[in-house]
Amino acid sequence: MQVMARNRTNKSEDNLIRKLETAGRKLRTRKSSVRLGIGDDAALFAPAAGREAILTCDWFLEGTHFLREKHLPEAVGWKCLARAVSDIAAMGGTPRCFLLSLALPDSCTGVWLDEFLAGLVRAGRKFGCSLAGGDTTRRRKILINVTVIGEVRAGRSALRSGARPGDLLFVSGHLGEAELGFRLLTERKGITAGNITDPLLRKHLYPEPRVALGHWLAGNRIASAMMDLSDGLSTDLPRLCAASGVGARVEAARVPAPRISDAQSAKHTEKNFDLVGLALNGGDDYELLFTVKRSKAGRLPRSFRGIPLTPIGEITRARNLLLVGPDGKEKALQGRGWDPFRK
Amino acid sequence: MQVMARNRTNKSEDNLIRKLETAGRKLRTRKSSVRLGIGDDAALFAPAAGREAILTCDWFLEGTHFLREKHLPEAVGWKCLARAVSDIAAMGGTPRCFLLSLALPDSCTGVWLDEFLAGLVRAGRKFGCSLAGGDTTRRRKILINVTVIGEVRAGRSALRSGARPGDLLFVSGHLGEAELGFRLLTERKGITAGNITDPLLRKHLYPEPRVALGHWLAGNRIASAMMDLSDGLSTDLPRLCAASGVGARVEAARVPAPRISDAQSAKHTEKNFDLVGLALNGGDDYELLFTVKRSKAGRLPRSFRGIPLTPIGEITRARNLLLVGPDGKEKALQGRGWDPFRK
Repeated sequence: MQVMARNRTNKSEDNLIRKLETAGRKLRTRKSSVRLGIGDDAALFAPAAGREAILTCDWFLEGTHFLREKHLPEAVGWKCLARAVSDIAAMGGTPRCFLLSLALPDSCTGVWLDEFLAGLVRAGRKFGCSLAGGDTTRRRKILINVTVIGEVRAGRSALRSGARPGDLLFVSGHLGEAELGFRLLTERKGITAGNITDPLLRKHLYPEPRVALGHWLAGNRIASAMMDLSDGLSTDLPRLCAASGVGARVEAARVPAPRISDAQSAKHTEKNFDLVGLALNGGDDYELLFTVKRSKAGRLPRSFRGIPLTPIGEITRARNLLLVGPDGKEKALQGRGWDPFRK
Repeated sequence: MQVMARNRTNKSEDNLIRKLETAGRKLRTRKSSVRLGIGDDAALFAPAAGREAILTCDWFLEGTHFLREKHLPEAVGWKCLARAVSDIAAMGGTPRCFLLSLALPDSCTGVWLDEFLAGLVRAGRKFGCSLAGGDTTRRRKILINVTVIGEVRAGRSALRSGARPGDLLFVSGHLGEAELGFRLLTERKGITAGNITDPLLRKHLYPEPRVALGHWLAGNRIASAMMDLSDGLSTDLPRLCAASGVGARVEAARVPAPRISDAQSAKHTEKNFDLVGLALNGGDDYELLFTVKRSKAGRLPRSFRGIPLTPIGEITRARNLLLVGPDGKEKALQGRGWDPFRK
């Protein structure tokens, strides 16, 4: 934490701290639970009466989660915060502030840092999340760790462990689009912040955590269990089921696949793109996966603020995961999403 | 956060998560503000009535903050938590829980991880700090980031900004010992957890954050300003002064230098070791630097639970930092502590 206070001993670090302080000021909200921000040993945070703090942290590492030469620094700034905020959304909470741990090479303390902070500030404003502190150091590779602190009404958070046999299983949005966006990014050259109009590319670079939806589902006790989809449905669903001590049956035909243009479609058909496979296994979507008791399903709209809410299957007593194919045949759902330790 | 939930897809990660869950169970305290720990999207934390949460995070990176071949994994586990807890101590707070972000090579998920977690659990028990969650991934170098959440009575935290001209300046303990311990470590071979009796080495490997002292100084409103010494007095004091808008005059002869044995003394004299220089510039001590109004100085004991509390100078209106030598001559105090961006 200490290096976020002004340090007169070195121009390079002084400059870095000044930039972070400026970003912090841009994110200061009028009404905030943050009592003390950057510049002391630690930050102070007081949840409002009757509310609990939600705590989550996420790595965002060069070479593991992003590529310096492919990912715009502005998108790195947006996404490192957005993906941690998604964990707050998955609990039904409201993000309040974050701590930024940043390790940078000297060569990135100029333009790269400016653009990174511009993306971070844009995300912080969008999510109502102020910069409360952090830690900085020098490193050959860019290392980022973000801790987000949110708030939720005590007892109203949606956990992974609440799913019960018979509950319906839902997802928000379309799955596999971010993965497809990443493939586009690695194929293309010369992508700059100005020319990103492709929705798949935007979904990969600028994910939008489902904060309002999560808050609505948890606050109104519609969702019996909830989590965000960061590693892909086939890898994340087993986690929800394990936490709840249940299984699930997913209908492949119902899983909302990526929406692609005719031109992309033609190209993908050539390449034999498996859109259902992408929807099942693609990571980085930051959509919500949630379960709803059948008796409450009628309260759920087909879409929430333009985001489709799709029933894709049901929770079962048997603790296995089944995928029902278009032919009606059942097979085991294999976890094929993102796993850093798979070889 | 997500990978801290059980994931059945891969044995290596499964194993890693199981070890972290076991460590988490060992640290579960009976009375805790942590409402939900490892295994969901995020953790829940509710400060007790009338208390605020304190938030801090710290990098602990292989090659930057520790060396894999020199630092015992057990000491890495202890120290990564201890140094973040020190920021809580510096605010006058009580540590409650922490989030652990861990990036490991496959080769470190066996014995190295076991010993690392043993040290972490030992530190967590000592500091009353439970493991509430985190994030894991695979990486060639060992990367650690720790977020600690503490509690403090609202309005009773000790900030860096409260020092006023005329206040006396104090430090706890002896400064420069951890730096000397690090030099011993790099000189010696074959140091194992069993044979660490040298107090200098222990101070470097197993720092003890001054939680009880910080709590006493802040809770009784003895300290007008406080911070922990992580980067060295000559680098940290300017931060406290900048936050308070003041300067300081330090008497070199009063700064408590490292305590060394006769044998070490002889060796160090040979090498012309500058003990005062070590006390002024050595980092990693995690002692407290604090200011006290003259009218309250009488309430301060000479030592607190065996830790000496030493007056080393005073706060001045003039915003510069002066060092008074043994000859009574004043010169500017140069920041020569740890600075990752210095070349």
